[in-house]
Amino acid sequence: MNAIVSAPAARLVHVPLGERAYDILIGSGLIERAGHEIAARLKGRKAAIVTDENVAPLYLDALVASLEAAGIVSASLVLPAGEKTKSFEHLMTVCDAVLEARIERNDAVIALGGGVIGDLSGFAAGIVRRGLRFVQVPTSLLSQVDSSVGGKTGINTRHGKNLVGVFHQPDLVLADTDVLNTLSDREFRAGYAEVAKYGLIDKPDFFAWLEANWRQVFAGGVERAEAIATSCQAKSDVVVADERENGPRALLNLGHTFGHALEAATAYDSRRLVHGEGVAIGMVLAHEFSARLNLASPDDAKRVEAHLKTVGLPTRMDDIPGDLPPAEVLMDAIGQDKKVKGGKLTFILTHGIAQSFVADDVPSSEVLSFLKEKHPR
Amino acid sequence: MNAIVSAPAARLVHVPLGERAYDILIGSGLIERAGHEIAARLKGRKAAIVTDENVAPLYLDALVASLEAAGIVSASLVLPAGEKTKSFEHLMTVCDAVLEARIERNDAVIALGGGVIGDLSGFAAGIVRRGLRFVQVPTSLLSQVDSSVGGKTGINTRHGKNLVGVFHQPDLVLADTDVLNTLSDREFRAGYAEVAKYGLIDKPDFFAWLEANWRQVFAGGVERAEAIATSCQAKSDVVVADERENGPRALLNLGHTFGHALEAATAYDSRRLVHGEGVAIGMVLAHEFSARLNLASPDDAKRVEAHLKTVGLPTRMDDIPGDLPPAEVLMDAIGQDKKVKGGKLTFILTHGIAQSFVADDVPSSEVLSFLKEKHPR
Repeated sequence: MNAIVSAPAARLVHVPLGERAYDILIGSGLIERAGHEIAARLKGRKAAIVTDENVAPLYLDALVASLEAAGIVSASLVLPAGEKTKSFEHLMTVCDAVLEARIERNDAVIALGGGVIGDLSGFAAGIVRRGLRFVQVPTSLLSQVDSSVGGKTGINTRHGKNLVGVFHQPDLVLADTDVLNTLSDREFRAGYAEVAKYGLIDKPDFFAWLEANWRQVFAGGVERAEAIATSCQAKSDVVVADERENGPRALLNLGHTFGHALEAATAYDSRRLVHGEGVAIGMVLAHEFSARLNLASPDDAKRVEAHLKTVGLPTRMDDIPGDLPPAEVLMDAIGQDKKVKGGKLTFILTHGIAQSFVADDVPSSEVLSFLKEKHPR
Repeated sequence: MNAIVSAPAARLVHVPLGERAYDILIGSGLIERAGHEIAARLKGRKAAIVTDENVAPLYLDALVASLEAAGIVSASLVLPAGEKTKSFEHLMTVCDAVLEARIERNDAVIALGGGVIGDLSGFAAGIVRRGLRFVQVPTSLLSQVDSSVGGKTGINTRHGKNLVGVFHQPDLVLADTDVLNTLSDREFRAGYAEVAKYGLIDKPDFFAWLEANWRQVFAGGVERAEAIATSCQAKSDVVVADERENGPRALLNLGHTFGHALEAATAYDSRRLVHGEGVAIGMVLAHEFSARLNLASPDDAKRVEAHLKTVGLPTRMDDIPGDLPPAEVLMDAIGQDKKVKGGKLTFILTHGIAQSFVADDVPSSEVLSFLKEKHPR
């Protein structure tokens, strides 16, 4: 018998979704406490852990030991790291492993990793036995502030990113801030783009705070936990208002329509562009495009670009190493993106810093000429 | 412009599931009216039809023409017929075809076929873009009275039947009674097992009516439509009370735990056993097992067997052509079935005709010795 580990201070964000409500815990040492937190919330005593080759050597043993100490028997599946793992083939592998482990309805699938592992294993948890319990243990800044909250799961297909998936809310999210210390600068910055996004959507004070405090957020400590908790709360607020993305939740896609097109154009090659970098460039483009449509001042676009550039993020298409396809091809990728209704393009535009809105009637000709202007060839 | 086809008399069963409510229409000539009925209910003007090689030559042209007349552009995917089509590989194929056809959120995926096509394409409709509109045009009696109503979708894996899937309610079900005239006697009988099931769950009058009127139901006409409408209404009632199968919906599995095990034991070989036949044998076994546990009179099991035998259905394990594996293997298949909680077996048992109930604490030793008694080897 092990004594109950005394709880270090953790921030709690509650996501009030009725019978699908859940807690997000943010703080230090949460992987060591995972078994305790899970056993306190779920009835089942079996778990299937899904992780990747980068994360497993760092944290898998600690997680398994923590579960075991809480009386939870676990099986583990270690997948290749990288965006290509979000495929139908790996979805099959995860479903098969979960069934092999005889995980039942009150047992849990646990995602230990970044957004790829979370999206893939959340999808599997949503479809095996038509829905199992699901716990997110996000190990990247990006997944802590974005993909682990909100219940969107999915895989990529040759037609585009995240085009196949389900809404399946987690039962618990454990965002251990210690694990971020092992991220590369580039990975941390990519996650930071999504943190900045929450300010740019509708929180002018938070964006100004980030402009003043970003160095401390990068360095760790209380400002980092503060930024993550503010981001999770912001995402929770939007998700609660619109769980299945019929309306305001679309605001979370600020910068994502352009960003996804750039990711597609670079064949999801993480050496050239990772998701957060695409979002950073996409947010600058969204502000510039809004200025071009006379919706916002060009100065706002400059302010956004200046901050993202200061933290070391790419902000222009030319910052992406290697050649990009012509504007027409980018436009086609945008047309295959899922934010399309009746042939018209839906974009998140803005009236300025923290004044973003959903525009569902943007003429594709305007987008195309804007892209040609930004990326002539 | 085509004039609006005047509506022949159709029965309507409304499934009141709030924002997921939908209509089931039952009657003659509904494939010819499909475009009209769909256009009246859905905003989109694109559709992807999924069907199989048996059904396509009979009804695909009529459905496409009907959609076209209503201004709906469609793409069609014709898959191999049979249970083996409910696989991950074919799920990928359907998702890919739906994306290729650029089906958007208000457009429809239309299942034209039996339960295999409905379960597979409903699953695809539930996951492409995290949920598209879905219309069922069931062409077997089994799918008209069972699988097309209620939103359960899924595929089979090597671990068992329907272990991977989602709940995704259709937006409309069109049960055209004319198409049943092209079914083989064996297929019709297999569907009839599910019709009888609704009586045996909790409708003594309906079961007695079937005992008196089954010949007319098989012959067609007003009794057939009556039996289908009563069955759809019964299923709707249970689904509305328990959409996601946490409680009373489990009653719909009367005969299915044994039935699924027999299907697994015959490797889903339809030459040996089809689903409805497994359910017929399973319902007799469920009544016999209930009698063995002193819950019901052995006379009720005999009455159930007599009726199912009269209509030509198999009622005993020995009726299945070829060898069955030993009782232990059947037991293992039951343990892998999804109605398992914390290691204990959940069974639908009965106190007599139309007095079924959910027993979630059945000792597996009792089941095993019962199986050994029924199937000694």
